[in-house]
Amino acid sequence: MSTTTFAAVSAVKQRSEHAFDVDLSPQWTIGGRPSGGYLLAAIARAAGVVGSHPDVLAASAHYLRSPEPGPAEVEIEPLRAGRGTSQARGRLVKDGVSCVEALLTLGTVPEDGRVRWADGLPDPRLTDPAGGVRVPGGTPGGVTAAIFDEIEARLDPDSARTFLEGPRGLGELRGWLSLPGDEPFDPVSLLFAVDSFPPATFDIAPSGWVPTLELTAYVRARPAPGPVRVLHRAQLIADDRVDESCFVWDRTGRLVAQSTQLAGIRLS
Amino acid sequence: MSTTTFAAVSAVKQRSEHAFDVDLSPQWTIGGRPSGGYLLAAIARAAGVVGSHPDVLAASAHYLRSPEPGPAEVEIEPLRAGRGTSQARGRLVKDGVSCVEALLTLGTVPEDGRVRWADGLPDPRLTDPAGGVRVPGGTPGGVTAAIFDEIEARLDPDSARTFLEGPRGLGELRGWLSLPGDEPFDPVSLLFAVDSFPPATFDIAPSGWVPTLELTAYVRARPAPGPVRVLHRAQLIADDRVDESCFVWDRTGRLVAQSTQLAGIRLS
Repeated sequence: MSTTTFAAVSAVKQRSEHAFDVDLSPQWTIGGRPSGGYLLAAIARAAGVVGSHPDVLAASAHYLRSPEPGPAEVEIEPLRAGRGTSQARGRLVKDGVSCVEALLTLGTVPEDGRVRWADGLPDPRLTDPAGGVRVPGGTPGGVTAAIFDEIEARLDPDSARTFLEGPRGLGELRGWLSLPGDEPFDPVSLLFAVDSFPPATFDIAPSGWVPTLELTAYVRARPAPGPVRVLHRAQLIADDRVDESCFVWDRTGRLVAQSTQLAGIRLS
Repeated sequence: MSTTTFAAVSAVKQRSEHAFDVDLSPQWTIGGRPSGGYLLAAIARAAGVVGSHPDVLAASAHYLRSPEPGPAEVEIEPLRAGRGTSQARGRLVKDGVSCVEALLTLGTVPEDGRVRWADGLPDPRLTDPAGGVRVPGGTPGGVTAAIFDEIEARLDPDSARTFLEGPRGLGELRGWLSLPGDEPFDPVSLLFAVDSFPPATFDIAPSGWVPTLELTAYVRARPAPGPVRVLHRAQLIADDRVDESCFVWDRTGRLVAQSTQLAGIRLS
C-alpha cells in the first residue's frame, strides 16, 4: 500500500540558483534502483523552477549510472530563454557523480489544447480501468518491484496473460496507470508515466532487467483527471539493444504524452 | 549538381582536446539554414574522435537557434566511459552562441549485426530506387532548398503526388536517399538521413518551414552500401507542434536508423 505521493517523492528543494536537493524514494524502485522516468521527472521539476516557461514540451535523458535511493542533487543550467520556448540542461548527481544527463525544451501546454490532425497513432482501445490485472509489487520472479506497491498499474486481461501464462510474442503491454491517492497527472508526472510499465520485451522473451540507455518524451496535452491509458511496445531487438515506444492517453482518449527509449537487453 | 561530399561538409578539425572547427556548407541548407540532421552529424563526428567508442548508438539534440552557414565550433564534453558504452555532451556554437545542444551515447555497431526480434515496424516497401521522382533543388515555392541539389532524395511516385497534385492527407513521405557521389552511409551520416526529407506535414497541409525543436535518433545497424530507404511520417499536430517519426532501411531491407522529432508548425 502506498505511503508516499508522486509530488512528495519527486519534490525538489532549491539550494542555490541552479542546484536542488531531491530525496530519491526507496519505494519508487525496481531491483532497488529508482525508475528512469522518476529520475527524469525530478530533473524536469527543477527545470520548471529555474526556467522561463512552466511546462516540459520535450525531454531527452541519457542514463550513465543507476543511483541508489536517498539524497541526490539536481543541477539545472539554463541554455536559452525565447518567447515561446526555452531550453535547459539538467543532470542528476549522486555522491558527486552524474547519473542522468538531460536536455529539456520548455514551453506552455495549454489548458484547452487543440488537435489539428491525427493519424497513424495506435488505437488507445479504452477499456474499463477497474477491469485490469494489477502488476504486483513485492518480489515476483526474484526482483523486488517496490514501485508497483506505490503506483497502480493495471494490465488489460490480454496483456496480463504475458505474466500469467508466458510471453505472447507481441512485444506489447496495454493498461491503465494511477498515481498513489489518484493524484492527477501533469506534464512532470507524465515523464514518469512513459517509463512506468514493465519492459514490453517481457511479452517476447524472459530476460533480466532492461536498462534504459536513452529516453525521449514529448508532452502533448494537459491530461484530464483520473488514470491514464498506457501502451508500451517494442519494435526491434538487435545486437543486445531494443527500442520501445510508449503512448499515454488520458481517459477521454486524448494523447497526452509519447516517448521512445533505447535499452540494453540480453536474451538467452 | 553536387560539388561537395557529406564527409567533406561534416568534417571537423580538432583545435584543442575538446574543441573542433567545422565549416557549415551554404549548399547543405534549406531557406539558407543548415539542416538539423547535418548539424547533429557534425557534433557526432567530433564526439567519435573524443570518445572511447567509435559509433553513435543514440543521439538527442535540442535546437536553440538556427545558425548561418560558415565557420562554427563543436564542443565535446565526455561524461562517462564504460566498457560497452560511453556518453558525451556536444554543442554546436556559432559566433560564440550555442545553437544546438546534444547528448550522445556511443558504443559499437557491429559489422555483422544480429536481429533477434522485429515486429510493429512499418513495412519498408522497397521499390526500384531509379523509379522515384527527385525532390527538386533550386527555389520551389519561394524557399531555396539548396540541399536537394546535393543529396538525391527520390520520392516514390505516390508520395510525389503530394508535391505535384497537393497533399494526400496521409502525413507520410516514402523514398530513397543517396549522398553525393553515392558515398556509403555510416552511423554518422545516418543522423543526417533521419532529417533529410521534406516535412511529412507537407502531405497534410501547406505551411512554412517546420523548425525542429528536438530530434532523437538511434543507429541500429551498419548499412549496406547504396541508397537508403526513408519513411518519414507525422502522427499528431496539436497546439502548433507536430511529432514526426523517421525510419531508415538499407537496400537489403534492414532497419539501420530510426528517429523521432518534435517540431513547430503553423497551419493557416
